[in-house]
Amino acid sequence: MKPISWVFSSGIQFLCSVHAPLSHYRKLHRTSVFCISTWGSKKKHRKVRLQFTVDGMADPKMEEILAPLRASVKEQGDLVRNLKAAGAPELDVKKAVAELKIRKKTLEDKELSLVPSAVTFDRAKMEDLLRRRFFFDQSFAIYGGITGQFDFGPMGCALKANILNAWRSFFVLEEQMLEVDCSILTPEPVLKASGHVDRFADLMVKDVVNGECFRLDHLIKAHLEKVAADKKTGQAVRDECQDIIVRLDGMTKDEMSAVLEKYSIRSPLTGNEVTEPIEFNLMFATQIGPSGLVKGFLRPETAQGIFVNFKRLLEFNQGRLPFAAAQIGNAFRNEISPRSGLIRVREFTMAEIEHFCDPAEKTHPKFESVQDTEMLLYSAANQMDGKSAELHSIGQAVDKGLVANQTLGYFMARIQQFLIRIGVDPAKLRFRQHMGNEMAHYACDCWDAEMLTSYGWVECVGCADRSAFDLTQHSKATGVRLAAEKKLAEPKVVDVIEPQINKGVIGKAFKKDAKIIMDHLAVLDTHGLAELEKSLAANGGYVVNVGGAEFKLTPEMVSIKQHQKTVHVEEIIPNVVEPSFGIGRIMYALFEHNFRVREGDEQRTFLSLPPVVAPLKCSLLPLSGNAEFQPFIRRLSQELTRLDVSHKVDDASGSIGRRYARTDEIAIPFGVTIDFDSLQSPHSATLRERDSMAQVRIPLDVLPEVVRDLAYGKTAWSAVESKFPKFEQQESVTKAA
Amino acid sequence: MKPISWVFSSGIQFLCSVHAPLSHYRKLHRTSVFCISTWGSKKKHRKVRLQFTVDGMADPKMEEILAPLRASVKEQGDLVRNLKAAGAPELDVKKAVAELKIRKKTLEDKELSLVPSAVTFDRAKMEDLLRRRFFFDQSFAIYGGITGQFDFGPMGCALKANILNAWRSFFVLEEQMLEVDCSILTPEPVLKASGHVDRFADLMVKDVVNGECFRLDHLIKAHLEKVAADKKTGQAVRDECQDIIVRLDGMTKDEMSAVLEKYSIRSPLTGNEVTEPIEFNLMFATQIGPSGLVKGFLRPETAQGIFVNFKRLLEFNQGRLPFAAAQIGNAFRNEISPRSGLIRVREFTMAEIEHFCDPAEKTHPKFESVQDTEMLLYSAANQMDGKSAELHSIGQAVDKGLVANQTLGYFMARIQQFLIRIGVDPAKLRFRQHMGNEMAHYACDCWDAEMLTSYGWVECVGCADRSAFDLTQHSKATGVRLAAEKKLAEPKVVDVIEPQINKGVIGKAFKKDAKIIMDHLAVLDTHGLAELEKSLAANGGYVVNVGGAEFKLTPEMVSIKQHQKTVHVEEIIPNVVEPSFGIGRIMYALFEHNFRVREGDEQRTFLSLPPVVAPLKCSLLPLSGNAEFQPFIRRLSQELTRLDVSHKVDDASGSIGRRYARTDEIAIPFGVTIDFDSLQSPHSATLRERDSMAQVRIPLDVLPEVVRDLAYGKTAWSAVESKFPKFEQQESVTKAA
Repeated sequence: MKPISWVFSSGIQFLCSVHAPLSHYRKLHRTSVFCISTWGSKKKHRKVRLQFTVDGMADPKMEEILAPLRASVKEQGDLVRNLKAAGAPELDVKKAVAELKIRKKTLEDKELSLVPSAVTFDRAKMEDLLRRRFFFDQSFAIYGGITGQFDFGPMGCALKANILNAWRSFFVLEEQMLEVDCSILTPEPVLKASGHVDRFADLMVKDVVNGECFRLDHLIKAHLEKVAADKKTGQAVRDECQDIIVRLDGMTKDEMSAVLEKYSIRSPLTGNEVTEPIEFNLMFATQIGPSGLVKGFLRPETAQGIFVNFKRLLEFNQGRLPFAAAQIGNAFRNEISPRSGLIRVREFTMAEIEHFCDPAEKTHPKFESVQDTEMLLYSAANQMDGKSAELHSIGQAVDKGLVANQTLGYFMARIQQFLIRIGVDPAKLRFRQHMGNEMAHYACDCWDAEMLTSYGWVECVGCADRSAFDLTQHSKATGVRLAAEKKLAEPKVVDVIEPQINKGVIGKAFKKDAKIIMDHLAVLDTHGLAELEKSLAANGGYVVNVGGAEFKLTPEMVSIKQHQKTVHVEEIIPNVVEPSFGIGRIMYALFEHNFRVREGDEQRTFLSLPPVVAPLKCSLLPLSGNAEFQPFIRRLSQELTRLDVSHKVDDASGSIGRRYARTDEIAIPFGVTIDFDSLQSPHSATLRERDSMAQVRIPLDVLPEVVRDLAYGKTAWSAVESKFPKFEQQESVTKAA
Repeated sequence: MKPISWVFSSGIQFLCSVHAPLSHYRKLHRTSVFCISTWGSKKKHRKVRLQFTVDGMADPKMEEILAPLRASVKEQGDLVRNLKAAGAPELDVKKAVAELKIRKKTLEDKELSLVPSAVTFDRAKMEDLLRRRFFFDQSFAIYGGITGQFDFGPMGCALKANILNAWRSFFVLEEQMLEVDCSILTPEPVLKASGHVDRFADLMVKDVVNGECFRLDHLIKAHLEKVAADKKTGQAVRDECQDIIVRLDGMTKDEMSAVLEKYSIRSPLTGNEVTEPIEFNLMFATQIGPSGLVKGFLRPETAQGIFVNFKRLLEFNQGRLPFAAAQIGNAFRNEISPRSGLIRVREFTMAEIEHFCDPAEKTHPKFESVQDTEMLLYSAANQMDGKSAELHSIGQAVDKGLVANQTLGYFMARIQQFLIRIGVDPAKLRFRQHMGNEMAHYACDCWDAEMLTSYGWVECVGCADRSAFDLTQHSKATGVRLAAEKKLAEPKVVDVIEPQINKGVIGKAFKKDAKIIMDHLAVLDTHGLAELEKSLAANGGYVVNVGGAEFKLTPEMVSIKQHQKTVHVEEIIPNVVEPSFGIGRIMYALFEHNFRVREGDEQRTFLSLPPVVAPLKCSLLPLSGNAEFQPFIRRLSQELTRLDVSHKVDDASGSIGRRYARTDEIAIPFGVTIDFDSLQSPHSATLRERDSMAQVRIPLDVLPEVVRDLAYGKTAWSAVESKFPKFEQQESVTKAA
């Protein structure tokens, strides 16, 4: 058993949050057990223990203890399934689901208690590094700051730009997607149709005196837990509190309001009364134009911009399906109480793909190329059965029906490949399927790529089959058909049946009523037309009931025409598979997965980001302030610029070791030092790799190309090491010559 | 004389604007005369004539006719100068400036009438191409659309991404700038300090019945022009109208309100009355967080995000000046009536640089490298003298004091280099200096890079010396010193004078008043302290007047301590030079500057964008549907993807010529065709260049690298032509084999 685990205390983001991360436990990968526990004071410096053991096998003794708890989860999971199958009332299902969650939590807590702790990870230390070297920090801090908003400094901004470029190259270029760049300000009708105006809301209450806001479910839960924990509370009330907490998720606004009143719940901060529950929509509202009449919102996701452009995109693709559109851009959510640093923010960058395909044809032409990808899948079924996530090849998962279709599976595999390429730790990555009751209103299957961080498992990429929901909604709202034509395998002969209306005769017979009669006839469906034909044949006439009156039509007035037509295409509303990346969350996970402490030197921390996304690729260090070094540094800088290799010259005083440590902190993967040997012909320099600190001696004339190839992943460090002589680090000479 | 000129009619953007572009006239470059005139119906399809002649010399006959008009402009320009020098009342200056503008317009109109028109440019045709191939189009069109908002389709989005990447490489990488990525939502106090809350507004009035909004100055001007043009109007009224129009620019809200009333101005659309003038702030307002108490705005520029991070950035740069920070991002302005397509929009992408430097040291270390750059400068002086823009090397311009300093000049030259690199026509680019009365409140010198389009000269990049305005404002608002330390050339000994306060004695003597007395003493400035010292020496006491009372202090209570201190640094507030790029406007100018019609075929239009910014670099075309071509196309596509070369396979049916035309429209610079000869060993393909339509035959094994080098500007087409055999276009064979 090789324990790799951390203990760390909270940093600034924590201070604003009393509800620190929950305990988590997951059995992971073939061979891994993860768990996170919380302890310590609840006040300011809540400590969090993240434990992470990699062993050959799950401990059989542990499994023995856990077996009854797993069974209890499964029992409840089965109940939920049966209730759903039997079409039980929604409230009963929700109650059963809530009980299921409680049992899962009991299981997790037990698992936690069985695993011993070991080495430590210090989140405060990492956050200190990220702030000190300005990867990111709170926005408008000199004005007191705004929670849930962050500015990326030079290193964070470069990392972000590199991730987005890698994303473009990996998805847009590789798959020839149609990338678009749509407006952020969105008029209300668009978001009404998408469901965001009505459903994208949380309930809250306000302190009647100072206006402070509380998320209603959080407030009720915290209050009732306190009541239930009070020794003076009788068993009946205690049970009722528990019951309400369990049912909270499924409660209506009125039900919650009744709870507020019954328990006289007040602001926990001031003791003041609170308002009635208010539906708080999470979109930022504004007015477009000066009239104050056009209401708009900042988009809560980039996806809608693609949907409203569907016709143009289909046309651009010459009418052919499938095709994918992509968009990188900012979206906004007015969170009631943002927390957890970059994980829950009010303004964030997304990268979204909408893959439009024939609903009857969700195979993917390139699926073969990914089918053997091994993925850790945490299915809805396993979640309900108290089981762990399981490793499957995506090919098997689709074959077994675990993942709904090839297209969804293809994107899941590509998401995993991308995340690993940019530096996510594969051992801390899983795909969790949404359970039926948590799926968004539009989705028919959805898997989240989740990454393990000290905040627990965090959803970083969603991958949903949104079916035809969005296009259908926008079609309905605008009357514009958002559909594609599908060529039939072979032309089809269809029967067409139409009414033949003799306007002249009807007009003469019914005068001012003629129009409504003819309108009525024009919109008869197949069934209505069949009735009409039958009646004409059988009764020699047909009675129209319209506008509260009866009109008898004769065969001279209307007849039925039947004919056949050959059609070559049919109209379909495409389905959409949507991989949706939260760039800020991915960045945060990358920071945690790549934060390192040098063995034997607790104070030397660094970030092991892969060269492809590292903010800067190379440092240029003169060994000392010796003027003779300067021309070499200048020339190298020019050559690296010409090759588009971002780099940093650090000619400050200080030992070379101290300067290396400084470049390690900002994740620079390669370092070049010009020393006294560089002055001799043939000119050369040392090249150092960040993670291993190994160095080689390398001629200056090939150095820029070698660094470029390393930086863009065309050469591996091992190849460089085998080609050039090893260099043993010389002592720093700060005041030489 | 070689006339290169266009006539074109308006497209969709025009239809929403009654105030079509104004006439413009500029003498340009050594050798060019440009003019734009308007004529035709004012209703819907207003036509615009853009004339652009390049001749060896300005026509001397023309100059003879224009001479008196030029003199008239100069006369008025001199008057403005004299008024300013004499410190005349602001209103008088403004009136003189308005008259100056009228004389300039008369001169322009005359010039226009002297130049004959010739070949035509059809903006409608260009816009048709841009819409049809979805470079960009109106946002939310299926919902009726919103004016001033546009979505970029695949081609526009790729062009934009390429421009931004080129910008990053040209500025951020080359100059090692600190790029940041800051929040869009900005709390009110930040924009209060920057001046945007108070000053970023236009006056408007509303129709009292339907709420329709009008920009007040536009409304008054249109109405008075109508009155003045009416034959029934007497001369006195006519003169008054002209006088008001001239003075409109400098009028206050109340003055304009009086004009509204006097002339009973109503809505020109409905005849309804209009409201009192309303100050309409152009920022989009919203609420941050659920309380409704934190007012925020969508940022109107990206610059403020950099200023509020100044301390962090200075620290990142190890406290050293100068350094530059950069930011690419979206900004928002709630225009009262957006118009002119991409030129005046509500949501736009900016790329801004803030170069922080010592106010006493505005030389630039790299100025030498640009000093010979020839630039067309249209100085404030020339604008007032009725002269044209003049060509200067930037070195001369700075030497002569025409451009304020080297740093400003360096960035102006770099801006020009960048614009030309991405495809701006150098003959349609000039730098115009802001005249004193149009300079923003924060600037001390400002030059706009303007590009000539069919909308006239359009400001696309601003380059301003903002002095210490922003840092000073944010310091004042927050109490946080936004300053840098400057090392003195040699240590300086300074006199320090401080009050020595005996708290015990003062407390005993004055009891509850002691605190305000001591506070008063603590904040005395040098002058106050000198007075105190003098009074103590002369009168043996000092009287403090504070809180409406008098207190007599004795030498036991307070004395003066004088000593000397050696200081090594002084504190300075850095100045800021700001190049600010409007990406959408640059894109629009690029479209116009690169729109071409094939000689002899009016219907074949294309875009000659340089490869470095072209949306896609290469097309891959199988000569026909022959299955044998497919493996070659697939393989090439994979290899180009590996080399990060964006490309498009067009295997639709249709002649090769038709497919080339299609790829020309979306500006693809290079086209590869796989034909029957490609099947033979050694395998080869044809490679075609878009602008010349020249083709070479090239072996498949070197093709991908050649295309990559062409695409990224590492090889010129001429080099490829000289290396590989010319290929004469073969006829298309659509149904071969």
